[in-house]
Amino acid sequence: MTESPAFRFDRAREARIGFGEAVFCESKSADQIAAILHEVGDDTPILLTRLEAQKADALPRALRDRLDFDALSRTAYLRVRCPLHETARVAVLSAGTSDLPVAQEAVRTLGFHGEPSQTHHDVGVAGLWRLEACLDDIRAMPVVIVTAGMEGALVSVVAGLVPGVVIALPTSVGYGAAEGGRTAMFSALTSCAPGIAVVNIDNGYGAACAALRHLNMLDRGQG
Amino acid sequence: MTESPAFRFDRAREARIGFGEAVFCESKSADQIAAILHEVGDDTPILLTRLEAQKADALPRALRDRLDFDALSRTAYLRVRCPLHETARVAVLSAGTSDLPVAQEAVRTLGFHGEPSQTHHDVGVAGLWRLEACLDDIRAMPVVIVTAGMEGALVSVVAGLVPGVVIALPTSVGYGAAEGGRTAMFSALTSCAPGIAVVNIDNGYGAACAALRHLNMLDRGQG
Amino acid sequence: MTESPAFRFDRAREARIGFGEAVFCESKSADQIAAILHEVGDDTPILLTRLEAQKADALPRALRDRLDFDALSRTAYLRVRCPLHETARVAVLSAGTSDLPVAQEAVRTLGFHGEPSQTHHDVGVAGLWRLEACLDDIRAMPVVIVTAGMEGALVSVVAGLVPGVVIALPTSVGYGAAEGGRTAMFSALTSCAPGIAVVNIDNGYGAACAALRHLNMLDRGQG
Amino acid sequence: MTESPAFRFDRAREARIGFGEAVFCESKSADQIAAILHEVGDDTPILLTRLEAQKADALPRALRDRLDFDALSRTAYLRVRCPLHETARVAVLSAGTSDLPVAQEAVRTLGFHGEPSQTHHDVGVAGLWRLEACLDDIRAMPVVIVTAGMEGALVSVVAGLVPGVVIALPTSVGYGAAEGGRTAMFSALTSCAPGIAVVNIDNGYGAACAALRHLNMLDRGQG
Amino acid sequence: MTESPAFRFDRAREARIGFGEAVFCESKSADQIAAILHEVGDDTPILLTRLEAQKADALPRALRDRLDFDALSRTAYLRVRCPLHETARVAVLSAGTSDLPVAQEAVRTLGFHGEPSQTHHDVGVAGLWRLEACLDDIRAMPVVIVTAGMEGALVSVVAGLVPGVVIALPTSVGYGAAEGGRTAMFSALTSCAPGIAVVNIDNGYGAACAALRHLNMLDRGQG
Amino acid sequence: MTESPAFRFDRAREARIGFGEAVFCESKSADQIAAILHEVGDDTPILLTRLEAQKADALPRALRDRLDFDALSRTAYLRVRCPLHETARVAVLSAGTSDLPVAQEAVRTLGFHGEPSQTHHDVGVAGLWRLEACLDDIRAMPVVIVTAGMEGALVSVVAGLVPGVVIALPTSVGYGAAEGGRTAMFSALTSCAPGIAVVNIDNGYGAACAALRHLNMLDRGQG
Amino acid sequence: MTESPAFRFDRAREARIGFGEAVFCESKSADQIAAILHEVGDDTPILLTRLEAQKADALPRALRDRLDFDALSRTAYLRVRCPLHETARVAVLSAGTSDLPVAQEAVRTLGFHGEPSQTHHDVGVAGLWRLEACLDDIRAMPVVIVTAGMEGALVSVVAGLVPGVVIALPTSVGYGAAEGGRTAMFSALTSCAPGIAVVNIDNGYGAACAALRHLNMLDRGQG
Amino acid sequence: MTESPAFRFDRAREARIGFGEAVFCESKSADQIAAILHEVGDDTPILLTRLEAQKADALPRALRDRLDFDALSRTAYLRVRCPLHETARVAVLSAGTSDLPVAQEAVRTLGFHGEPSQTHHDVGVAGLWRLEACLDDIRAMPVVIVTAGMEGALVSVVAGLVPGVVIALPTSVGYGAAEGGRTAMFSALTSCAPGIAVVNIDNGYGAACAALRHLNMLDRGQG
Repeated sequence: MTESPAFRFDRAREARIGFGEAVFCESKSADQIAAILHEVGDDTPILLTRLEAQKADALPRALRDRLDFDALSRTAYLRVRCPLHETARVAVLSAGTSDLPVAQEAVRTLGFHGEPSQTHHDVGVAGLWRLEACLDDIRAMPVVIVTAGMEGALVSVVAGLVPGVVIALPTSVGYGAAEGGRTAMFSALTSCAPGIAVVNIDNGYGAACAALRHLNMLDRGQG
Repeated sequence: MTESPAFRFDRAREARIGFGEAVFCESKSADQIAAILHEVGDDTPILLTRLEAQKADALPRALRDRLDFDALSRTAYLRVRCPLHETARVAVLSAGTSDLPVAQEAVRTLGFHGEPSQTHHDVGVAGLWRLEACLDDIRAMPVVIVTAGMEGALVSVVAGLVPGVVIALPTSVGYGAAEGGRTAMFSALTSCAPGIAVVNIDNGYGAACAALRHLNMLDRGQG
Repeated sequence: MTESPAFRFDRAREARIGFGEAVFCESKSADQIAAILHEVGDDTPILLTRLEAQKADALPRALRDRLDFDALSRTAYLRVRCPLHETARVAVLSAGTSDLPVAQEAVRTLGFHGEPSQTHHDVGVAGLWRLEACLDDIRAMPVVIVTAGMEGALVSVVAGLVPGVVIALPTSVGYGAAEGGRTAMFSALTSCAPGIAVVNIDNGYGAACAALRHLNMLDRGQG
Repeated sequence: MTESPAFRFDRAREARIGFGEAVFCESKSADQIAAILHEVGDDTPILLTRLEAQKADALPRALRDRLDFDALSRTAYLRVRCPLHETARVAVLSAGTSDLPVAQEAVRTLGFHGEPSQTHHDVGVAGLWRLEACLDDIRAMPVVIVTAGMEGALVSVVAGLVPGVVIALPTSVGYGAAEGGRTAMFSALTSCAPGIAVVNIDNGYGAACAALRHLNMLDRGQG
Repeated sequence: MTESPAFRFDRAREARIGFGEAVFCESKSADQIAAILHEVGDDTPILLTRLEAQKADALPRALRDRLDFDALSRTAYLRVRCPLHETARVAVLSAGTSDLPVAQEAVRTLGFHGEPSQTHHDVGVAGLWRLEACLDDIRAMPVVIVTAGMEGALVSVVAGLVPGVVIALPTSVGYGAAEGGRTAMFSALTSCAPGIAVVNIDNGYGAACAALRHLNMLDRGQG
Repeated sequence: MTESPAFRFDRAREARIGFGEAVFCESKSADQIAAILHEVGDDTPILLTRLEAQKADALPRALRDRLDFDALSRTAYLRVRCPLHETARVAVLSAGTSDLPVAQEAVRTLGFHGEPSQTHHDVGVAGLWRLEACLDDIRAMPVVIVTAGMEGALVSVVAGLVPGVVIALPTSVGYGAAEGGRTAMFSALTSCAPGIAVVNIDNGYGAACAALRHLNMLDRGQG
Repeated sequence: MTESPAFRFDRAREARIGFGEAVFCESKSADQIAAILHEVGDDTPILLTRLEAQKADALPRALRDRLDFDALSRTAYLRVRCPLHETARVAVLSAGTSDLPVAQEAVRTLGFHGEPSQTHHDVGVAGLWRLEACLDDIRAMPVVIVTAGMEGALVSVVAGLVPGVVIALPTSVGYGAAEGGRTAMFSALTSCAPGIAVVNIDNGYGAACAALRHLNMLDRGQG
Repeated sequence: MTESPAFRFDRAREARIGFGEAVFCESKSADQIAAILHEVGDDTPILLTRLEAQKADALPRALRDRLDFDALSRTAYLRVRCPLHETARVAVLSAGTSDLPVAQEAVRTLGFHGEPSQTHHDVGVAGLWRLEACLDDIRAMPVVIVTAGMEGALVSVVAGLVPGVVIALPTSVGYGAAEGGRTAMFSALTSCAPGIAVVNIDNGYGAACAALRHLNMLDRGQG
């Protein structure tokens, strides 16, 4: 009996669900990542997430040089999947400056799949005028991703004001009663505003994928 | 200073977000519900959720007689909002027979808004052939609601197989380590399959609203 | 050695902290309550909280007849402590109709001490216009009690808009991720809006007492 | 469409709620902090919280030199908002020496807004005489902030003895059953002494803001 | 193979650990309890705990009549083990009237073993003078059981003032942040006062047994 | 009285339960480990678990050189207990590449006892075809260890498809709602597929021991 | 499109995993149960679990009369699957009398599949001699199910003494720190004795199924 | 108003409760510790706990040289309080080698107060013979401290076998379901063996203080 390989790249995923497998780098060594990318081969554009700058720099030089790496979101593109569309269909909001890295992971994941984002940062409800100033732009978008830590009140306020798909992206920003993002996540799940779709804490990639499923259906046009 | 009224029906909600306010009956008395319905008036179709049969029967007779009440889902329609469309755009799955009431709340909420559901019950992964038998039908739907309690593994399996919007609807079915639905909810949130949109435990109404946001955008056609 | 009495009424409390002891009836029998009231004597006005209608009715008839009982808030006055002032200094808000009993416990506790409340019910953020309509009135109050269950987003929104003392009064309204009020309580504690004072879940009495401490200091005028 | 700025300083906050926005430095880089301070401009006094000495030293030299930095509380003033009043209106207590940094964050936040503090450190209930020795001083204050970790019993004892506003400031001091401050926070929330206002674990800034709301109302004199 | 009996009374327990097995009635039917008592036989005095009045009344009449039943503590004696000593060696305190049933379970368990209790009820720290009034009596006792729910601050205050063995007996009195007694239990475990021995929530029987182990060693003399 | 030794190697364990004591190195210093191995003596083969490479290198050189160390699983053999059997009786699956170290700890523990493993890595349910491709091989094994983090759905799917003993080995892979492995562990415990045996998070050693108990009984023949 | 049936009996389960589907009655109405049994038909023996006596009595009379119902374990057989073997291969232990219903669910599930159980009840570690008295019998069994609530120490003691497969069956017996069975379950999962297989709280059915998987492999004889 | 000192050494503690204040060094800097010791003065023997070797070395040289420091337990004596008695009255057990540091903190605290300990290490229940070998010695002691992490089963077994005061000292040894010591602590609190006194996780100091309270009462003679 031959031994099992350590990874099996799911090439059929895009055909099945509309977007391909990404490489989650958090618990993988630079060696493992390099091996996976080698196995994927030169024809497949691929997205890497949770790639620390240090780990990126530990990749083989030739590989590192070909990466389009973004430090804030800890993401990298190896080859682009498709060029950015002209019009944004997703608004990405963040409640505070500390939520930026997570929001940016969503922006970058969308960008990899050709979807530009309309961003509105630092629009938390402690100063509601900031949200109101950009509300018309947000209401025009079919999908709105709301990134928020602490108590995540921005999610409810937005969901009560816009008709589009609202994806709550809770973050681990905060301390004590924030419980590492659980309070923001539970707030979104038990919001008084109806129809909110929630993803895991700090999961910018997942929020973008949820948006992509929607956009793919829009494109399929099964109205 | 005049005293505050006890409720303020949000008539502007439909214009803002695409569907109107429902009456959540769980923590309201029959008297309160009757008062709210009276205040809403005779022109507005309205959906009632978490209405126990007993409480429904405690409503004034004239009102009770006009309700289209469904015991399984504990929902009632007072006037229909629009007739059912011909074609289903939402598949509603349930892992086990015990998940039916929650799934049915989603079906009824969709129905109130004119959306028929394609249902597939008792298709949990303990017998995977049951899901496989209806997979083609499910893959054709732009939105799939997956109702599951216990460990909620059905959610991940479906999300790995279909391209549409996947809404996880965890239920409180189970005991012990099921933790009243928290394990199913957390499973969906931390699923290895990407892009799952999660709603609160037993929140069939919320899952349907998330689907409606999507369908409304499909109708707006901002592809 | 003589045996200990079962209760010791803290007559010195008002002198020490500005308001007297109330009788928390939840875990006491009708007999125990009657005994305590008898021991307190006929000269001391007293407030009873968490008194179920059924238990009130089980009190000796003569005692029951002298109670000013309010079923919604489950509170009773035995003799009034002082007449209501003319001007309200506390606004009591509630996010939804289901939060009314808890909000009313605060209103009644304040009333027992002569403080009228300015109430604004069902002003949750799912329909933000409802709050905006009464914002000017609220901003004029030195103390604002915000009653909210589920995700409690109303607390943060109010605290970002008004200069007065903001007391968050989380309620156990909601299910699943609401965790019996813990999510609302944690949301208030980790709010992005600064300077919120939080009390226990469903503790309308405690919220009113926190307000009274403030009002007493206002009266002492140690500006 | 232009990209969103990463932060929007809420200049209107002081007018709305009585004190301005502070910069929470914990999850921001030295570069981000410098950018924010540059954007705020030279006319606005500003408070920085959770600023580690190391991060302060990584700020541009010219900026660093102008900071009034306090290592114990990890706070810094950039320009003072107003000179210290002569008379303290807030007592700040701490149960043990380990609670000092959190208590000091409250003291410094109050100081930035011109409010001196009356401090009483290491007065935990394991040796009750320490509290008794300074009780008269504490009772004279309109606001008392009680800083305590572990089981936080000091909060209840103080609240049973003083008439002023009592703000519980739980800390993460302790281990095991202290649960990172949750036990102290929950103790304060479920205290047998009535009318305690609770803020988040280790949130000295928030406790001070709650005090400021009170003091502002005292100054407005709406007795 | 013969089937196992459903219970095996541990007759050797007294010889091993100094006191005999009690019958915990909570999850047993009246039939099971009667069967156990029959099997124990007529020579062994026995203590029953968590015996609801209703269940006691469902026992065979002859058996019921021989029980010394106490409704408040839900305990019963079948034959007394030894007459009460003259002098109390254990003080049993309770913070509030609602803690009485649990404190009484400790008193009754001690009484069954011949130990009278010195009781001090309703001496919680919200009115500290109540404790101070009986402190000298308490300080004279070699063992002090402190019964308290909510935040359980009484435990720390007592442990800081008396030299004897302090046994914390947390109760489930309270709601919300009281978490069914967990906050009181955790407060005792993480108390700033040293050397507190903690037992389970509402476990008056266990607190008394811990006291008995101590008293037995006192009787054995200095090991 | 002589002082107690710091450890007592349980030489009788193998006779009692079928396999010997292993040395869990996580909370032991290199010195302690060396002392234990010295005490064990030269005749007893021994397995070391949770031995970080760094700590292994800190062992005395002569000892280090004799270790068969595996960095991925952090295990070491000092002398082999018995040569590998020819035929595998245990399948070890892993859901993702990040689960490999835990799966490998199971493989190495089995190998130390002479049991080869049939491995199938990266067969998580997000791409179900990967499991289906090796299902026949897995079904032939009397024991199947399923290693999975995140939501652990692979466990349920496998248990619904194979007749052998299924041991769920949850891992701490994931973040947020993964709760350090608790969600995977709870998913396995509350699985809809019957008869799953669950071990602790990241406990590859324990999963292998559970398998060994089974294999020993197989070897003993039908009890 | 036809509507989905409410249940799909998994007839292929026995062929796949070695034992058939059981009907979990807890969240099903008597009507639903009757419908399922009707659909299953007259040739298939079937096991019902969590069937309350009251619900059993609400089944159609003809059906009820054919059930072999056991009140203690709340299980019923409709037709027996196979006669009891002569020799027990599974020991079922319980720590206390209160654990009997859960242990009996395991005994009945095994019995339905023809496996007699060797039972040892009330052998908890508070009186260790009780376990020692039957240890030789237990050691002879290839599978040992240990039923225990509270702290579940019996599980560790047994697993340190016997060579067979040890299945921990935690129960919800206990209160306070027992946390509804979670402490017993976590104790088993983190036991110092190696190789314990744990199932969900109160899941006697699951423990028996785990045993059946083992026994089936013994029968397949793949030693 | 003068500023508060940062610490107030509780010199009256010994007179009140029988042993003096110790310095808990975990959250204090070397400078703070030196200042406290200076303030305490040269006549008072003092115990330091949770003093890391590194921090001890950072103390002023003259001070460091006078410390009797023990690295394993992280304790130090500055002057001894009284010489060791000849006869041990406390047995200190530990379940595994990893529990040694916590057990040793208890031993050292007892030693500082003149009480020698009878130690029995690595006697966990996975190999019950180890406990049995020293049981007679343990039974002779008036106080037994049982140190155990993981599932802490040793506590219940010991408490079922010995008549003395049993103090459970749970440790944070273990991972996953051990929950940082909470499972061991909860196991002790909900033990089936009666009369166990529990202290906080890893609190060797507290366990020793609980023992000292008992020994002091033994010395005082029978109350």
